[in-house]
Amino acid sequence: MSGAATEPGIGVNPGGSPILAGFAGRLLAETRELIDPSLLAAIDELPPRVRLVAGYHAGLWDAHGRPGGHPGKALRPALVLSCGRAAAGDVDTGPSDRLIEAAVAVELMHDFTLLHDDVMDGDAVRRHRPAAWDVYGVAYAVLAGDTLLAVALNQLSRLGVGIDTLAATFLELCLGQGTDLEFQGRAEDPDLSRCLALAEAKTGALLGCACQLGAMVTRGSERETTPYREFGRHLGVAFQLTDDLLGIWGDPELTGKPVHADLAARKLTLPVAKALTSGTSAGERLRVLYATAGRLGQDTARMADLVEQADGRAWAQAEADRRAELALDALDRARPEPGAMAELRALVELARHRDL
Amino acid sequence: MSGAATEPGIGVNPGGSPILAGFAGRLLAETRELIDPSLLAAIDELPPRVRLVAGYHAGLWDAHGRPGGHPGKALRPALVLSCGRAAAGDVDTGPSDRLIEAAVAVELMHDFTLLHDDVMDGDAVRRHRPAAWDVYGVAYAVLAGDTLLAVALNQLSRLGVGIDTLAATFLELCLGQGTDLEFQGRAEDPDLSRCLALAEAKTGALLGCACQLGAMVTRGSERETTPYREFGRHLGVAFQLTDDLLGIWGDPELTGKPVHADLAARKLTLPVAKALTSGTSAGERLRVLYATAGRLGQDTARMADLVEQADGRAWAQAEADRRAELALDALDRARPEPGAMAELRALVELARHRDL
Repeated sequence: MSGAATEPGIGVNPGGSPILAGFAGRLLAETRELIDPSLLAAIDELPPRVRLVAGYHAGLWDAHGRPGGHPGKALRPALVLSCGRAAAGDVDTGPSDRLIEAAVAVELMHDFTLLHDDVMDGDAVRRHRPAAWDVYGVAYAVLAGDTLLAVALNQLSRLGVGIDTLAATFLELCLGQGTDLEFQGRAEDPDLSRCLALAEAKTGALLGCACQLGAMVTRGSERETTPYREFGRHLGVAFQLTDDLLGIWGDPELTGKPVHADLAARKLTLPVAKALTSGTSAGERLRVLYATAGRLGQDTARMADLVEQADGRAWAQAEADRRAELALDALDRARPEPGAMAELRALVELARHRDL
Repeated sequence: MSGAATEPGIGVNPGGSPILAGFAGRLLAETRELIDPSLLAAIDELPPRVRLVAGYHAGLWDAHGRPGGHPGKALRPALVLSCGRAAAGDVDTGPSDRLIEAAVAVELMHDFTLLHDDVMDGDAVRRHRPAAWDVYGVAYAVLAGDTLLAVALNQLSRLGVGIDTLAATFLELCLGQGTDLEFQGRAEDPDLSRCLALAEAKTGALLGCACQLGAMVTRGSERETTPYREFGRHLGVAFQLTDDLLGIWGDPELTGKPVHADLAARKLTLPVAKALTSGTSAGERLRVLYATAGRLGQDTARMADLVEQADGRAWAQAEADRRAELALDALDRARPEPGAMAELRALVELARHRDL
């Protein structure tokens, strides 16, 4: 993805992707340092085996609880912190304890969705390692997910901010996942706008929630913080498009997933949905391959070529750029503090040119 | 259980179990009629297959969505309604729409726990039928559970009452289930007080939440409604004890579960825990049988006899009675409206002499 063209004229360091990725990378690393102590403290209170599973999944330790893990990117907590500081108009002092607690709640919520989604989708690899259900069994993956969700809700309850917002997001995620599970078997009848709506429900919803929660912690009112939610929702769709591109053309070393895994599983990702609905002969050939349960390997490389020929790749990148612009428009309406604005712009760039 | 002795002198129609069960039975049937339209409306909004799974589990239809089901007892929503009316001091008018919505939220929460617990415990029978995961697969059972929980939280969010209370209960249930899963393999080292604490976390917590939520809808303050929570928690432990007794000596026609299923699965239920820690020779023989993975059939009948010889049966019934008295004590402190008090007393009797 690092070679992708930068959309000109939107005022975010055109062509500066590597530098921005570096800034965003540092921002995410700082976020991990800020939230990990609270995240660990929350997980430490759980019953021993649930604690082991949750901490393994979160990348705090290996499968036996020994040092060494591979934590997530911390994108969502970074959004909580940056949006919180943006809304407070105060980026020079560090984030408050309350903001950090909200960021941890959002990360726990994200971990919950990953734990359950991996069970439902049968995905056996997560964050470069075997998925929790594959290591500890389905029972513990389900329970660890439930428990992290419960901790997240109670953390916001204690803060007195945003439990209703998180609950609404949780419902939207569930409805999205329900629609997604029903779609997966229907690559023969794809609907691009429905797939985009699904990306907004599944990824956009939680990013929107992260941004709004951060702003709510420092600004209070839910109404005032609506632009932050809109920012996060557009950003989430951009991220999903980039994720889908990485799922086909990304380096497995960087994505933590097997090459072409989404194609092998015949997932109806956004570039694939675009290709299948393109009306091109490449799209038709892709449709035939997608309908054939498969010897994997070579087939998936051929599929990737067909997605590209049928405009799936270029369209997804352009749509990611378009969503990124919409995100920036929403952010402008929120009139954030300038220092935090720079952080948020860096995360927007990350969303469309991710090489992390 | 219908032959169990009635504890004398606690002022709740001694010996009147069949009549009380009849009253309680009518109360539960009325509750179903009151809540089912709202329950159905909530489930109807879900994506088609999640809706099918949720409605099958809730007993609204058969596995193909055709009329015919086997709904739950509606104990928890009955507690919401009765405690709501008790706290309002107004039993003559029917329950308000708000109270019914809260009752539906609690039933959805209960359905969530059953869906996930059956997956985790591998229990294949629920409410006289194959469990949802057995019919629709684990993915849909997990997702339907998540979705019902999300709907429950959002229902309370809309009401503006009790979402924090439900979230706290959710966490307690998760921690209880975590401890329970770890215990299941440890029949060789049982701890009776830990098992009782677990029954309070798993069953008591949700019944306490149901009672408090009902009172909160009509009375408002969380502090004022604490006696209702305490009432529900004691009642929950009484119910669990009776449930465990039914799991061994109950009529499968009535319980909806295979005979001796808990013994076959070597579950560390309360009567078993009592027997294993009794220091009797019957308890020792039970311990040996419990440690032997088993040809089932005859073995479980022998186990049931040993539990009884080792005082597990009589102790569990006496403890259920004691908890029922504690529940009534808490209820007296709440000074409920007299008509609702009669309903709640009937439910207490049901908790210790259940033949539904």
